[in-house]
Amino acid sequence: MKKIYNPPRTDWKDLLRRPTRTVADIEMQVTTIFGEVEQNGDRALIKYTERFDKVDLDRIKVPETDITAAEKEVSDELKQAIQLAKMNIESFHKAQITDKVEVETTRGVQCWQEKRPIQKVGLYIPGGTAPLFSTILMLAVPAAIAGCRDVVLCSPPNREGKIHPAILYTARLCGVEDIFKVGGIQAIAGMTFGTESIPQVYKIFGPGNQYVTVAKQMATKYGVAIDMPAGPSELLVVADDTADASFVASDLLSQAEHGADSQVILVSTSKALIQEVEKEVEMQIKALPRQEIAQKAIANSKLIHVADDRIAIDLINAYGPEHFIVCVGNADFYVDNIMNAGSIFIGNYTPESAGDYASGTNHTLPTNGYAKQYSGVNLDSFMKSMSFQKVSKEGIKNIGPAIELMAAAEGLEAHKNAVTLRLAKLKG
Amino acid sequence: MKKIYNPPRTDWKDLLRRPTRTVADIEMQVTTIFGEVEQNGDRALIKYTERFDKVDLDRIKVPETDITAAEKEVSDELKQAIQLAKMNIESFHKAQITDKVEVETTRGVQCWQEKRPIQKVGLYIPGGTAPLFSTILMLAVPAAIAGCRDVVLCSPPNREGKIHPAILYTARLCGVEDIFKVGGIQAIAGMTFGTESIPQVYKIFGPGNQYVTVAKQMATKYGVAIDMPAGPSELLVVADDTADASFVASDLLSQAEHGADSQVILVSTSKALIQEVEKEVEMQIKALPRQEIAQKAIANSKLIHVADDRIAIDLINAYGPEHFIVCVGNADFYVDNIMNAGSIFIGNYTPESAGDYASGTNHTLPTNGYAKQYSGVNLDSFMKSMSFQKVSKEGIKNIGPAIELMAAAEGLEAHKNAVTLRLAKLKG
Repeated sequence: MKKIYNPPRTDWKDLLRRPTRTVADIEMQVTTIFGEVEQNGDRALIKYTERFDKVDLDRIKVPETDITAAEKEVSDELKQAIQLAKMNIESFHKAQITDKVEVETTRGVQCWQEKRPIQKVGLYIPGGTAPLFSTILMLAVPAAIAGCRDVVLCSPPNREGKIHPAILYTARLCGVEDIFKVGGIQAIAGMTFGTESIPQVYKIFGPGNQYVTVAKQMATKYGVAIDMPAGPSELLVVADDTADASFVASDLLSQAEHGADSQVILVSTSKALIQEVEKEVEMQIKALPRQEIAQKAIANSKLIHVADDRIAIDLINAYGPEHFIVCVGNADFYVDNIMNAGSIFIGNYTPESAGDYASGTNHTLPTNGYAKQYSGVNLDSFMKSMSFQKVSKEGIKNIGPAIELMAAAEGLEAHKNAVTLRLAKLKG
Repeated sequence: MKKIYNPPRTDWKDLLRRPTRTVADIEMQVTTIFGEVEQNGDRALIKYTERFDKVDLDRIKVPETDITAAEKEVSDELKQAIQLAKMNIESFHKAQITDKVEVETTRGVQCWQEKRPIQKVGLYIPGGTAPLFSTILMLAVPAAIAGCRDVVLCSPPNREGKIHPAILYTARLCGVEDIFKVGGIQAIAGMTFGTESIPQVYKIFGPGNQYVTVAKQMATKYGVAIDMPAGPSELLVVADDTADASFVASDLLSQAEHGADSQVILVSTSKALIQEVEKEVEMQIKALPRQEIAQKAIANSKLIHVADDRIAIDLINAYGPEHFIVCVGNADFYVDNIMNAGSIFIGNYTPESAGDYASGTNHTLPTNGYAKQYSGVNLDSFMKSMSFQKVSKEGIKNIGPAIELMAAAEGLEAHKNAVTLRLAKLKG
């Protein structure tokens, strides 16, 4: 682990730099597969599923019998855990429902803002070694609360042509009707263009590897929106002598096990804590099954000592962490002054895992510094706000002359005329 | 104008298709200019301003003396109009402020969501023949309400190296401190990378031509967010025999004068109204200074007759208009069932110009069918939502076991361990 003591501000930019990745060769592949899926639909999906997932499917849609069977394959214990998490996520996201905002801005000029659901959304759930059913909770629960009409889920099949039962169980628990066995670039292409099996969607959500990330970017060129740009997951912990070094170490490691490119940073005003955490990490890492991955991430991690809280918060805001854990005596200072972070975890008994699974907050969060300008996924991610206005005869008399003047000054006479005609009618 | 009677649903896709544009050659130019601005900063900005705007600047920042002078050059009448519009826009966008959303999802698990301002935003205001000062109101007013710390404005200079006084006046009225004389691709590049004069920003807002649009897309590759993808402006009017044909025609024309590629559509259950509107358009268009532009847009416009309201609303939702005017007896039906539209104008005395300038709603809206998944600019566009959680000892006892189970099932043992350590401590 790299320990850095009191870095001068001029070094911050380099110190906080994330690893960049080149995507040019992936883009070529994405372009090819998008072209084929647009042209050949399901046939292309089946072809690439055979190539990448090594399984020859004859139908892409998961049959009802598989979904029913999955319910029996998931242990009751795990089902209860998933249900508890779902309840908390539901209660936090339901609280985000907003009322219509209505204002009479001038007498006779009624304006309001309403949020309405995005009608068709697609959820992508990666496959691989671990079935990320928790991400289904994070996406399908708010989609249902928002009232999205069509919710489509794609996830790659294993070599037996199956999707993990925990994924099927969770999807159905959340009311997802249409589940498709397709992953990677071809899944994103399928939801972008629609195929014989998969309906076209307006917005695609969900994490994925580099291929999926580039494919999602490509989807935006075809008019599909995406949840947010993606990058490797990250955690920044600010801690002082009130923190428990073993807890801090366990949080850093829970981030590090995600991938070798995970970003792990500890900021502290206490040199003693930095030493202790380093020791704890070395000890705990040995017991981890994903030790090899975690080792690589930890090798790139940074333990940064700073002189005081004011410097610390400036540095943290300059970084804009996805996950930000606050284990300090004066937590309020950090909570009040953090401007750029995805999700904030406060106190010694709030590990990042709480938000990853079951506290109720969403775990789909902006990485790569995007916390500076992007929200994490929340209820609004599944809706769009629309504005309405209704101007009465009195209203147009009140604001009409101003509109005429402004339109004329902008050289838009037809805009002016639309008002002039109406005002003339009212005089006549 | 093309009149279409009762088009079958199978024809809707073609009927509602927007013109596509190729951007490959523009992309090359954007890449070059971005590269130079990143490397050479102000020097590159000055070079390209000389090339495209035909003026040799020695400094890019607008001096205070110009801003003070501008206030005297704008007529008192226009100033009052701008101030009235500003008041309405302020009152509508202030009403959009949301409270902190706070929920105890499980005993001891406190979660909340807060919106915080994007710290650095850039506003782009096009130059050209007309000074679009109204767009400054639409962007700088919500930026101020949101509390964005740095607000930067770029607009191209004229051949005398000046920016139109109405733009300077409005910018200062809205509290914009830093105004720069730079336009087009080079302006977007400047705000993306930052230069000696222009600060780097996190999100760029504002309309522009194809060059600006492609440059904004390029900016997203460098981690800058943009307000929304852009396309030619569009208006769809639904009207029946209760509508005034001359008003409807004036609204269609106010859209048509924006550009030859503007999209103008009338949907009606009344053949008589379609005939009348066509006649009115032919008459009114002759008096317009921008007649030539409007003629081209009108030539591509569509007057679509449908059998009933249910078919009409399906067709309109399939199109997803930027602006949607509702002039029918049963307006409520359309207001309740419209799912995809940027801004909705209800009744005979609510022309599109009202929302363009002074009703209080925002005129920066999703075009090109993006109303299906994007919000128009609103207060939230200048903020991001962040989630917070604080779990007590009791809280982690309540949700900890579920987290352990779920993390283990996803194969993430370090995530589990972060909880196990804490639960052990509480038992011990």
